[in-house]
Amino acid sequence: MHKEQLTEINKLLRTWILTMTTEAGSGHPTSSLSAVELMSTLFFGGGNGASDAFFRFDKDDIDYFANDRLIFSKGHASPLFYALWACADGIEADELHTLRKIDSRLEGHPTVRFPFTEAATGSLGQGLSIGLGTALAQKKLDGSTARTWVLLGDSEMAEGQVWEAMAVACHYEVNNLIAVVDVNRLGQRGETMLGHHVDVYAERARAFGWNALIVDGHDVDAIIQAYGEAIHEQKRPTMIIAQTIKGKGVSFIEDKNGWHGKALNREELATALAEIGNVDFQLRGRLVLPDKTQKRTLRQTDTAKQPTAMPSVGTMHAPRNGYGEGLCDLMSVDARVVVLDAEVSNSTRADFVKKAYPDRFFEMYIAEQNMASVALGMARRGYKPYLSTFAAFFSRCDDQVRMAQFSDVDLVCVGTHPGVSIGADGASQMGLADVAFFRALLGSSVVAPADAVSTRLLTQTLSASSGISYLRVIREEVSTLYDAHEQFPLGGSKTLLQSAQDDVAIIASGIVVHEAMRAAKDLKEQGVSVRVIDAYSLKPFDSAMLYNVVKQIGKMVIVEDHYAEGGLGAIIKDILSGTSYELRHLCVRDVPRSGHMQELLAYEKIDAHAITQAVQEMVQ
Amino acid sequence: MHKEQLTEINKLLRTWILTMTTEAGSGHPTSSLSAVELMSTLFFGGGNGASDAFFRFDKDDIDYFANDRLIFSKGHASPLFYALWACADGIEADELHTLRKIDSRLEGHPTVRFPFTEAATGSLGQGLSIGLGTALAQKKLDGSTARTWVLLGDSEMAEGQVWEAMAVACHYEVNNLIAVVDVNRLGQRGETMLGHHVDVYAERARAFGWNALIVDGHDVDAIIQAYGEAIHEQKRPTMIIAQTIKGKGVSFIEDKNGWHGKALNREELATALAEIGNVDFQLRGRLVLPDKTQKRTLRQTDTAKQPTAMPSVGTMHAPRNGYGEGLCDLMSVDARVVVLDAEVSNSTRADFVKKAYPDRFFEMYIAEQNMASVALGMARRGYKPYLSTFAAFFSRCDDQVRMAQFSDVDLVCVGTHPGVSIGADGASQMGLADVAFFRALLGSSVVAPADAVSTRLLTQTLSASSGISYLRVIREEVSTLYDAHEQFPLGGSKTLLQSAQDDVAIIASGIVVHEAMRAAKDLKEQGVSVRVIDAYSLKPFDSAMLYNVVKQIGKMVIVEDHYAEGGLGAIIKDILSGTSYELRHLCVRDVPRSGHMQELLAYEKIDAHAITQAVQEMVQ
Repeated sequence: MHKEQLTEINKLLRTWILTMTTEAGSGHPTSSLSAVELMSTLFFGGGNGASDAFFRFDKDDIDYFANDRLIFSKGHASPLFYALWACADGIEADELHTLRKIDSRLEGHPTVRFPFTEAATGSLGQGLSIGLGTALAQKKLDGSTARTWVLLGDSEMAEGQVWEAMAVACHYEVNNLIAVVDVNRLGQRGETMLGHHVDVYAERARAFGWNALIVDGHDVDAIIQAYGEAIHEQKRPTMIIAQTIKGKGVSFIEDKNGWHGKALNREELATALAEIGNVDFQLRGRLVLPDKTQKRTLRQTDTAKQPTAMPSVGTMHAPRNGYGEGLCDLMSVDARVVVLDAEVSNSTRADFVKKAYPDRFFEMYIAEQNMASVALGMARRGYKPYLSTFAAFFSRCDDQVRMAQFSDVDLVCVGTHPGVSIGADGASQMGLADVAFFRALLGSSVVAPADAVSTRLLTQTLSASSGISYLRVIREEVSTLYDAHEQFPLGGSKTLLQSAQDDVAIIASGIVVHEAMRAAKDLKEQGVSVRVIDAYSLKPFDSAMLYNVVKQIGKMVIVEDHYAEGGLGAIIKDILSGTSYELRHLCVRDVPRSGHMQELLAYEKIDAHAITQAVQEMVQ
Repeated sequence: MHKEQLTEINKLLRTWILTMTTEAGSGHPTSSLSAVELMSTLFFGGGNGASDAFFRFDKDDIDYFANDRLIFSKGHASPLFYALWACADGIEADELHTLRKIDSRLEGHPTVRFPFTEAATGSLGQGLSIGLGTALAQKKLDGSTARTWVLLGDSEMAEGQVWEAMAVACHYEVNNLIAVVDVNRLGQRGETMLGHHVDVYAERARAFGWNALIVDGHDVDAIIQAYGEAIHEQKRPTMIIAQTIKGKGVSFIEDKNGWHGKALNREELATALAEIGNVDFQLRGRLVLPDKTQKRTLRQTDTAKQPTAMPSVGTMHAPRNGYGEGLCDLMSVDARVVVLDAEVSNSTRADFVKKAYPDRFFEMYIAEQNMASVALGMARRGYKPYLSTFAAFFSRCDDQVRMAQFSDVDLVCVGTHPGVSIGADGASQMGLADVAFFRALLGSSVVAPADAVSTRLLTQTLSASSGISYLRVIREEVSTLYDAHEQFPLGGSKTLLQSAQDDVAIIASGIVVHEAMRAAKDLKEQGVSVRVIDAYSLKPFDSAMLYNVVKQIGKMVIVEDHYAEGGLGAIIKDILSGTSYELRHLCVRDVPRSGHMQELLAYEKIDAHAITQAVQEMVQ
């Protein structure tokens, strides 16, 4: 496209940005205006062939695996994003008038309800990691020539997650990842830490192993030059650091504080549009198509591989091994499954995969935020990521998992070493609110199996589950409860002991199921008969079982290695709210400390002894 | 201390490290051994005066404000930490034998049960931020000459939070912050991303504005030289990047993979101790005292300042203004209160303080993880931090807040813009599981006031609350419900409407209290009488009120602008579990979108209309 045409397109984009935000009565026009040249040049400023165009995309085949991808990490620049796609003829220009309206696909921050959104953004500092995920998928899994472009704001460079992504991207040499930083100097409430010191950004990027280029973000020739260099870089990811002016193109808001997240009023809009001058509302650009003859080189499965033997009932086996084995079972038949781990794969047992399927295992080092968003990016590209770390450390990426709710992806999060049962390492390493977090996500699934067989089988089951799933995995060796042929559907439970004369039901999940079994044995000797239920599926939950317990017994002891709030107890109290029944809720109520597992279970009163006592109190 | 003596001390430290971990049967000897010279030199290798010593500390006056502080960010090196304090005569050497035992203060990762622990660590990548908090307190609040030293591992340099702290520390020119990175090359499951490339660490640190020094971490002279430079640096924080050998001092584990977090067995221990040779178990070092004549220059209060007027009942006022005003009220009388905000102070209204008390306001930019840990560090130094951002973005620092549970601090977390009521910005900006998170913390308090007066008063009340408090603050202008003289104790509630003939109770918190009032008006016109309760205190909760409702009415509608799990509904169902009563629970159940507040409240069925309908269903 000629430079003159680009200039006209930029006027059109600015007009749309200003008009749609004024119509909406809110939004971020100034943060959009600063990146107009950067994005229009990306779309329309390159060559005409797949080899020299910048952003290559078939808008009539959005899912085509070898399309380039664009992520607006600065999601508040959504007016620019929507205007761009109108200009590229992806949507009708009329739709721009619906910005931020309740029925519109054009939300305040992009979500995947808008078809050209690669991932929902709006929590800053996540886009580069998501882009790293798509770039890894493109280069290392698909084997395509596709690239990922990420537009970042300068304020979000303060988020540590950006530097996690920088370090890992350099490590994996994803030269198909190109970041564009819109350094407009002004954050929400004033100047950023670095202002217009673009040299400092460049120095930092280079120290992290990136190819860093500084440009004037309103100089189209400079941008073309930089993009051209970026697409020919053979090894390093590239960061283009663009010095820009917030509110560019409208003199009375340019580079002015106090204009963040503010739409112009009607009068101001008229003045601004007059300044921009006449625009051609019919003007459209054309995106260059990617090479559509590419073949996806999906990683190989290995269906000939014999699964390892299942442990037999009664033998001691660590459920975490069941996770590693379940992954291997699954990956031998499903090429979409990929595994990420945050530098603890020898403990989580994700390293079973590292050995068996090295190309589908991604070491993410101790950077959980980046891991979660990379997984999201891979999921958006059609893969099925399992991501594992200690249950406690998933709290490091709560915001990233939260955002995944709005990107319509399936992710399996696997937290090992949950609860006080891990013992001697102490409270910092104990996941005690993990179920509460994952359960509160819309449409999530949460399972907490009690032995190696159920862990292994549920690992596989979750690959068919949609949305965000959480698998809580026991580290310790425990007695194997189930036969290899047992079924563990989501929403089920297992009644391990029952009789027609049960006095009390003990409902437990995870490691304390074994304590419940021990208590049952003690109680039997005392002539007390209890039902023992392994509630392995926490969300969805087996309500029918619960109603039966209330009807047939009316008394229950709930046991969990988790805080009082948000776990098994909360689930049962929720389902049975308003119903009359008797219960004792045993859970973690005191600050845990270091010690042996059995000492800790006793200290928190969730061991067999405490269960026995609770039951005794109820039958007196 | 003579170098020969240091050599002897290092042998003693190594002997203790190896012995205590073998006795405990677990722990991290190799990660401790690599930092022996670094830490013994810090304690005992400097000059004899407060001006040329490195770490200055009065062990008999731990709380002395101008003591230097030491944070083991690599908390798993706790055996070294405990051994150091035994060597400095802080604890009896005998206590080392209790490592990781259930009754011991010497936990697997340091907690504040051990008196010399500045902050609990064990979730990697947090220590530098905590140290930044103490360094800021020392330099900018106390006005002392004290320094903060932080020992980091190389693996944790992958955590983005470290780089958040790096950027902010450079910005605030905390030359009294000195980081020591123990680059022992090996992480938990293999080599780190950068291995022994200490030059790359240095380059990154320099790009972030730090004074970076590379040393051989086992060369005492080199370490002395580097520490000497660091303490005389006038402007920049210093990072000492030490190339070390994991397992140093025991030939068969030195620099070997597979030895992370593993104690030697008895036989291996004997071999190792033989290699170390004779040690003098009576050897002790002496810490140099700080200058004890210093005066704390606590930031000034301003008791003469007249508080601004309270809004009167029935007028429209934004609760977030109540937060900013409440802070100003409080800070005029309490010099311990400091305020941190993550680049949204113009929205949260923390900027009221920035203007009134600029020295006690800390702009933390968009880096919530670092903000939370900096606040923790300041709290450990005797300050009372309020930290604010959007409720949604507190999920970015869940792990940091989680860890604060184990450091015995009082923190007030303030999340504004909660729930779908924020409208047009969309789901990414809506805090919908914030109550669930904060409520699950041990010993926490959670309040969600419904108007500006109660917000302002609760802002002050929380300054006397211990542990972690959460204040959920409404952005929108709402009708003022309360008179300025009303009391809002923790654990209370307000009954806004009641009669002897109430058919149903509506229990709400936050913005939907106003929807409940509107519904009550509509229902009254239909001849239905309802009780309306503002449950502003979610934890602790007014159980007495609830039991009354059950007894007197037996029917309730619960309304909250929060997900179904973990909020007001969960609290009530928990308290009333096992009790027979009738309820409807209105909350956020569908993925929200952009729109106007009233549209969103209607979309999620938590508006006056939905409440009216729920009540009607119950009285039919």
